[in-house]
Amino acid sequence: MILELAEIRIKPGQQAAFDEAITRALTTVMSQAKGMRGYKVNKGIESPERYVLQIFWDTIENHNVDFREGPLFAQWRAIIGPFFASPPFVEHFDLVVKSDGASA
Amino acid sequence: MILELAEIRIKPGQQAAFDEAITRALTTVMSQAKGMRGYKVNKGIESPERYVLQIFWDTIENHNVDFREGPLFAQWRAIIGPFFASPPFVEHFDLVVKSDGASA
Repeated sequence: MILELAEIRIKPGQQAAFDEAITRALTTVMSQAKGMRGYKVNKGIESPERYVLQIFWDTIENHNVDFREGPLFAQWRAIIGPFFASPPFVEHFDLVVKSDGASA
Repeated sequence: MILELAEIRIKPGQQAAFDEAITRALTTVMSQAKGMRGYKVNKGIESPERYVLQIFWDTIENHNVDFREGPLFAQWRAIIGPFFASPPFVEHFDLVVKSDGASA
């Protein structure tokens, strides 16, 4: 399993609407993606427009090819894209170590 | 519960040694910290010197005051600090949404 971590900056003052939109995008669109094994969204305390989206995938190709080049990507971006202040910064990660109970 | 997310850049070519060092620092030092409820370390695929450390705390004060101003901080930094290419960038986050099984 690999981790996608996306840094998202939204426009000021839209936190409540974005919280609703990304929750809806995850539960209605991302949940259909091949190889998608889980997700988490956190919002910044010091930086209220900063969000970190983490998605767990079976393989990097499930994200980069199956999802990004497939029909779900446009639906996903239609819901959350209007909130972005700048393009998200996205990279992938392997697990080094975690405590009991933490996700990969 | 709040999330601490630290962006770490290490010096090139030291991944294996850093993997061992941060695992040891978490299990021998961080595990003693008041209010520390779990942790995870991921390493970059596209950016091999990039690490993301996530620590779950009961409160932000457990991190900022109890840990950073307490005796464990020097022990923690003595183990992992020598690997840093630049000072880590650290912020705190609240949970927006997660799938079943993902950590806060």
